[in-house]
Formats: sequence, structure tokens, C-alpha cells
Amino acid sequence: MPTTMTSTPKSSDLISTLVGIVGAAQVLSEPADIAPFVTDWRGRYRGAARCVVRPGSTAEVAAVVKACAEAGVAIVPQGGNTSLCGAATPDVAGAAVVLSLGRLNRVLAVDTRNNTITVEAGCTLAAVQEAACAVDRLFPLALASEGTCQIGGNLSTNAGGVQVLRYGNTRELTLGLEVVLPSGEVWDGLRGLRKDNTGYDLKHLFIGAEGTLGVITAAVLKLFPLPKRQTTCWLNVATPAAAVDLLTAAKSVFDAQLTAFELVSENALQLVLKNIPGSQRPGVVSPWCVLAEFSDAEPAAVEAWLAARLVSGEVGDGVVAASEAQAGKLWALRENISEAQKIEGISIKHDVAVPVSRIADFLAAADAALSQAFPGIRVVAFGHVGDGNLHYNLSKPDALDNAAFLTSQPQVNRLVHDAVHALNGSISAEHGLGQLKREEILRYKSPVEMALMRSIKQVLDPHGLMNPGKVL
Amino acid sequence: MPTTMTSTPKSSDLISTLVGIVGAAQVLSEPADIAPFVTDWRGRYRGAARCVVRPGSTAEVAAVVKACAEAGVAIVPQGGNTSLCGAATPDVAGAAVVLSLGRLNRVLAVDTRNNTITVEAGCTLAAVQEAACAVDRLFPLALASEGTCQIGGNLSTNAGGVQVLRYGNTRELTLGLEVVLPSGEVWDGLRGLRKDNTGYDLKHLFIGAEGTLGVITAAVLKLFPLPKRQTTCWLNVATPAAAVDLLTAAKSVFDAQLTAFELVSENALQLVLKNIPGSQRPGVVSPWCVLAEFSDAEPAAVEAWLAARLVSGEVGDGVVAASEAQAGKLWALRENISEAQKIEGISIKHDVAVPVSRIADFLAAADAALSQAFPGIRVVAFGHVGDGNLHYNLSKPDALDNAAFLTSQPQVNRLVHDAVHALNGSISAEHGLGQLKREEILRYKSPVEMALMRSIKQVLDPHGLMNPGKVL
Repeated sequence: MPTTMTSTPKSSDLISTLVGIVGAAQVLSEPADIAPFVTDWRGRYRGAARCVVRPGSTAEVAAVVKACAEAGVAIVPQGGNTSLCGAATPDVAGAAVVLSLGRLNRVLAVDTRNNTITVEAGCTLAAVQEAACAVDRLFPLALASEGTCQIGGNLSTNAGGVQVLRYGNTRELTLGLEVVLPSGEVWDGLRGLRKDNTGYDLKHLFIGAEGTLGVITAAVLKLFPLPKRQTTCWLNVATPAAAVDLLTAAKSVFDAQLTAFELVSENALQLVLKNIPGSQRPGVVSPWCVLAEFSDAEPAAVEAWLAARLVSGEVGDGVVAASEAQAGKLWALRENISEAQKIEGISIKHDVAVPVSRIADFLAAADAALSQAFPGIRVVAFGHVGDGNLHYNLSKPDALDNAAFLTSQPQVNRLVHDAVHALNGSISAEHGLGQLKREEILRYKSPVEMALMRSIKQVLDPHGLMNPGKVL
Repeated sequence: MPTTMTSTPKSSDLISTLVGIVGAAQVLSEPADIAPFVTDWRGRYRGAARCVVRPGSTAEVAAVVKACAEAGVAIVPQGGNTSLCGAATPDVAGAAVVLSLGRLNRVLAVDTRNNTITVEAGCTLAAVQEAACAVDRLFPLALASEGTCQIGGNLSTNAGGVQVLRYGNTRELTLGLEVVLPSGEVWDGLRGLRKDNTGYDLKHLFIGAEGTLGVITAAVLKLFPLPKRQTTCWLNVATPAAAVDLLTAAKSVFDAQLTAFELVSENALQLVLKNIPGSQRPGVVSPWCVLAEFSDAEPAAVEAWLAARLVSGEVGDGVVAASEAQAGKLWALRENISEAQKIEGISIKHDVAVPVSRIADFLAAADAALSQAFPGIRVVAFGHVGDGNLHYNLSKPDALDNAAFLTSQPQVNRLVHDAVHALNGSISAEHGLGQLKREEILRYKSPVEMALMRSIKQVLDPHGLMNPGKVL
């Protein structure tokens, strides 16, 4: 095997063992072959690996993990490699094995009476959505990267998205898990139960653990009825506080039929109108807008409710999509913000959450701190206001060049994250910690909480071989 | 202090310390004073305690736990003492301290824009419901013992109830926790965030842990809009399978507006009609009935849907409550089953869950196994079919006397639990393990799962002082 030429004898032994488990074709060690697996999709994190191994079954994952554990070699589990925080990228030492889950891509069962789907970790999110749709059900997790990201990664990062308001995060969508533990043992928790109070809830330990406590290999997920009709509207509001008031009012009337409630600032909308061809402003200019989606509500009820909000002045102007195509155009304005900002130039991004009631306070505090420290800085704020989750992104002041702006990133992050923390918020609402925020979190989590997390890591992965350098 | 007369010197030292923390009035050690705290409410578990201590704040709880940890004395946390499995009763040795949370009964905050309420652990469930209602919100957890049970106990047992179908278990209703750890340190996780992906989700470790990993002292809980109208119906169905089909159909049309879906067998209904004065059969006799509740759905839509089900034969006969009083009477038929069965005589009860799609299979298998082993045994099955959760209770065959029936309990349990396990179900859906099922669970959980649970217990509570003899 050519790989042995550049490997230490120990590495050679391990690779032989891995080849024995998964076959030579599924152990990659040529630099060209492993390149896509050792760099994140945005090219921000570049690592190296002893090899990439691609098991095809849970038994093979278990055997690979066991072999690595016996050799004392670290493992970096990887799904679709779409992390925004370098959570699936190995470090530069090149000692780790990347364990790619992509071949575990079977839908194992669909149970329409239990409203569950059982899938292997390597299924793309889109494949899970499609399998649900094929039996007239909704799997509600929806993300920009859904065609590429894998459900195992969604589980490991407790992914969020635009429908959390109604359906919850990935954590709330999960009934059961199968996990290969750091020892190589398999925990079979693949239960499709809505109620089970027989001891500690182990699945919640692994969900959101970013592969640092074990490798998720399969899951039982909840399905929901497919909405039969949706009403999508674009509503102008004067302030973020007015948006939150509108949210409160909409929830009290429409409850679970309010399935999305997204906040968009004029700054964010302007970037889309400027940089995304075909974009069109819905209605008149407003400092803030809301994209609201109602599912299975009577359209007449939604329109009557909106009419009353216009009369009261709670909404300044409103557009209700008259067709699916129009609804799609409204959604595109929201979904293209990141792309538009990328076209505009470099930016410093934050994925934060505060209590919904503190959204306006957070924006006021962060805006004030930043404009004092960095006059001219442009705030591009938008996000899932229904979940208290903002993507609080910053474009550079005209007076600064790119290099100077990027140099200021630690200070910018500090100001934003301190404002979040002062409101008892989270510096990573959706994306996880990965490598990106592993140090930063030490400033905000209490020593007691960090000690609890470390003690759990220590007892489940005493040799620190599962995705080292991430989270903790 | 009179208590020192019967205490060992060490106990005396500890009691002095505890008196120093909470005051003499809040340390009970006279047998008459501690009696209500060392026996469960049904009188099934009788224990003893060194003393009962009633702290009035989280700081006092922390100091008490620290003092006990330093003295090497076990703690039994206790809320409303309404456990059905002896989870809050100390053992007979009398060495433990009962830590009663009842004085931590403040509502700390209500945030209508965040739809959250922050409460201390000793608030009764009814007090939490009332505080929510006072601001026009619903806290949806609802249980028979709600006037007595405390939210800390609900959290520690991940309580369920009749609205889990729509709102989830206590676990799904919780955003943040404050916990006094076995060391006496306080983990402040009192966050009211809908999204927070900054490391391991510690709250889910303590929820459902029955006080074996620490003492929950406060929580941030989700609130929901109060339903503005409800439609309650009693529907005859031919079989449990027909009930599940009806559930599937109702969910696909009404989604989250279907807020309860309870199954009642004719055996169960007959006991209520016989033993509960004023009970009346709704409609004609049927082997099985469903109590369904729709919230905020158009009554006309519900009635049209039901009319079509009657025409198709999916429902044999149906009654829609015409008033709140009528709805209350229908609910009383369901809620009085346990009481009616108690009046009828002794019974052997089970609180089990299977996937919703396997309800009929479970009933067929369990009924067959039992009628073969115990000819004439009467199955009184009912429960939250929407959650796959049945209270599968058994009344004795006429041929057996009470003593002989009770002697058969281990064998009856075994047959029922084996049937549950064969369908990948749970032998404790709602009630927890406590003392009652601590041994039984060893038959059904894998050694890998038990080892994981034990390792978590070991690392968080290395001296085994938190509620010993429960769960593990």
C-alpha cells in the first residue's frame, strides 16, 4: 500500500487494521484524496489526518473506533463537513483519523402511525426531508446547507433553522439515538417513544456534543403532518421592540400555526436588493421588517388580523404573498442575506441568542458599544426573532481597510458577546462551539459549568480521543 | 435540643450545623414531625430519617448539601411526596436527611414576551399553572396530583400527563435549571433561551434523574397561549388499532390543534359507571372509546370531520360536548378510572409505553400472555394513546383471593414488561424508576446503557449520597 511509505510503523499498523475492517477502497490516505476532508467548506480551517476512513455500517464504525482507541489515535467524526466553526476539521498535527459517516446513508424505517423516521447518520438532511415527504409527512428541520449536511452532523450540533419557532431544534425532533462510544461499544438507544422515564436521558448528552463524546450512527426522528397551505407575509415594523410585540400578538392568536417569524433590518435588505439580481423591495422603506409564515391557518383569519394591525399602526405596511411564487420571492429576500453580504465584502459574524423579550435591549446595547468603538461600522442584523436568535453581522466602516477590520475582530466579538452575556444570552445559538468559540466560551460559562462539562467528557472519553480540540 | 437525645454524636453535630443554616424551626427530628416525610402518600414505602430539613433559599439548600457531603450523610430530596415509585422516600436505615423543598415556593419572574416563567422548585404545579393563567398564558403540564406535587418533583421525574401529545413532557417544557450539585456547589443554568448550542446540555441530565445527581432548586419553563376554545368528544371505536388510525387521521388534519387523545376500554368505563356516582355512559356500548380534545380548531371543522368518520365507520358513535360542563363530565369519566379501580379492589398497575403504531400489538400480546397464565384476569387498559403510553392495570380473577393475586404480581409484571420490551417499549413511561423498578429495569436495559448511567452517577456523585437506592 502506498500509504505506508509516509506513515510511521504504528500508523501503518492501524491503517492495516482499518483496511481489514472497511476494505482498502474506504481508507484514504493520499493527500489529494483526503484534502476535501481536512479543510472545512469555507476554507477557514486547514488540518491534516493520518487517513480518512469510510465505514459502511454501525458495526464497522464500532470496529474502527475500537481500533483507534486501542492504538491511542484520535478520531474526528465528519458528516457533510458544513460546520461554521471548524467542528469537523482535524488539527494540523496529522495524527488523527477522520471518520466520515457518508456511507451510512440508509433510511432504516418510516412509521407513519408513530410519526417517526429512523435514519443512519450519513443521510443528508434533504434525503430525510424527502423520505418524510414521500409518506405525506414533514421533517421540519430546514437549513441552507440541507443538500450537503448530514443528519448526524445536525444531531451533533443540535441544528436550528427557520422553523424552530414551531417545531423546535434538532434536539426536540429526536426520540432515539444509536451511538458508538469512545470505547467502540455501541449504545443502542434507537427507541421511538414519546414517553420513557427509565433513568438518565442519555441521548441529550450526545446531541449537541459535536462528536466529542461518541459517534452518532443512527437516530429515530419525529415526523409531523405536512402543512396543507401557508400564508407568507412581509410586514414593516418601526423597531425591533415592535417586531417582538407583533410576535407576541401573533402567537397569542395563531399559536402553533405561526411557523416562522424572521426579522430583517433595512441594512440587510439593502444588501440583498443591491447584490442579488431580481430582488425587489416589498412595499415601502422601513427600518425593520418581519417575514411571517402561517401554516394551516385560514387565510381570511390571517388577513383580518393583519388588517387590524395596520389600522392600529403596529404594522406600517404589509404584503401578503398571493401565490407560492410570491412567497418564494419573500423568502429569497431573507435567505439571500448571507450571500448578499458575502458579495458586498468581508464581514464579522455572530450567531447569538437572548430571551425574546431582550432582543431590542441587545441590539441597542451592541449597536451603541460598536459605534463608539468603531465609528462607521455597519450593523447587518437579521434572524430568527421568534427564537431570540440573531445573526448579528458587521460590515466594515469605510474608513477601515479589510486588514484593519479583520484585526479588530477579537475586540468586535468581545463587545458583541459581552452584550449578549449581560442579558443572560448565548454566544452560539445554532452553530456550536467547534474550534471557533472554544476559548471564547471560557469567558462566559461559569467555572462550575465548565467543570461539569469536563467531568462528563473525562468519564465518557477518558483518553480524550473523540474530536479533540473541539468544544472543550 | 430534644433531638440530640436519640442521635449519635455525629448526627448531633450535623443537626447542629443544619440548625445553624436554616434555623431550629426548619430542622425536624421528632418522630411525629418527620412521619409525613418518611412515608410515601400511598403508604407503600416506609422509611426513616435522621431529620427533615426545610431550607428557604437556594443558598440554604447549597449549605445543607455541603454540610451533608462533608459529614458523608445521604440526602433524599423531596417535593410534594407524590411519587408512585417511592422515589422520594428514604430507606429504613434512618441515616439519611430528607431535604424538603416546599419553602422554595416563589415565582421568581414571568416574561410574557419571552413566554417563560421562572419558579423555585417548591412551587406546586397548580401554583405554576395559576401564575401562568394570571398573565393569560398556559403552563400545559397537568396531572391528577397538581395541587400537591411540586414542580421540582415534576422536573426530577420528567412528568407527563394528558397534554404531552401537543406540548411534550416536562423535559420539553424546560429552558433552564438551577441545580445544587452533590458537592454543594450551585450550577446556575437559569437561562430562558430557545437556542443555545454552547456545549453539553446539562439540564437534560438532571431532568428525570429523580434527585440522584443533584437537587433542582429553580427552573425557567415555557409558557403557551391559552386556548380560546376547546371541542371535546367521546368517540366509540371498534379496536385499539382503529383508535390509532383515528389518531393518525386527526393529527394529519388538525396537527397541533389536537391537544388530547385518550383511550378508554369498556372494562375501564364500566368500573367508573359502577363506582363513581353520577357517571353516565356517553352513547352506546363499545369495546373501546377515545376521548379527544381539539383546541382552537373551528368547531364546525371538527364536527364536519367527525361526521365523515361516522359515515366511513371509523367511528361507531360519537358525542361532542355541547358545553364546558359536558366536556367536564366526559373528562371525569377518563380521570376517575384510577379512583374507580381503587374502589373496586386491589389491582396490579403498569405504566408502559410503546411506539404508537404498536399499541394494538402490545395489547394483543399482553392480553394473551396474561389470560393464559391467569385465566379470568381482568384487563383495565386506558391511557395516553397519542403518546403510546398505556396504564395497563389488572384486576384479579374471581377465582383468586387478594393475597394470591398479590403474590402473582412479580409474574404478572414480568409478562407485561416482557411484552413491552419485545416491542422496544418502556416499562416506565411517566412515573420513573424510584425504588419500585430499580431492579426490574436491569432486565431490560442493556449493560452498555446501565454502565453509561452508572458512570455518570459516579462522576457527579462519587460518594453516592444523592437519593441513594433510587434509579440505580
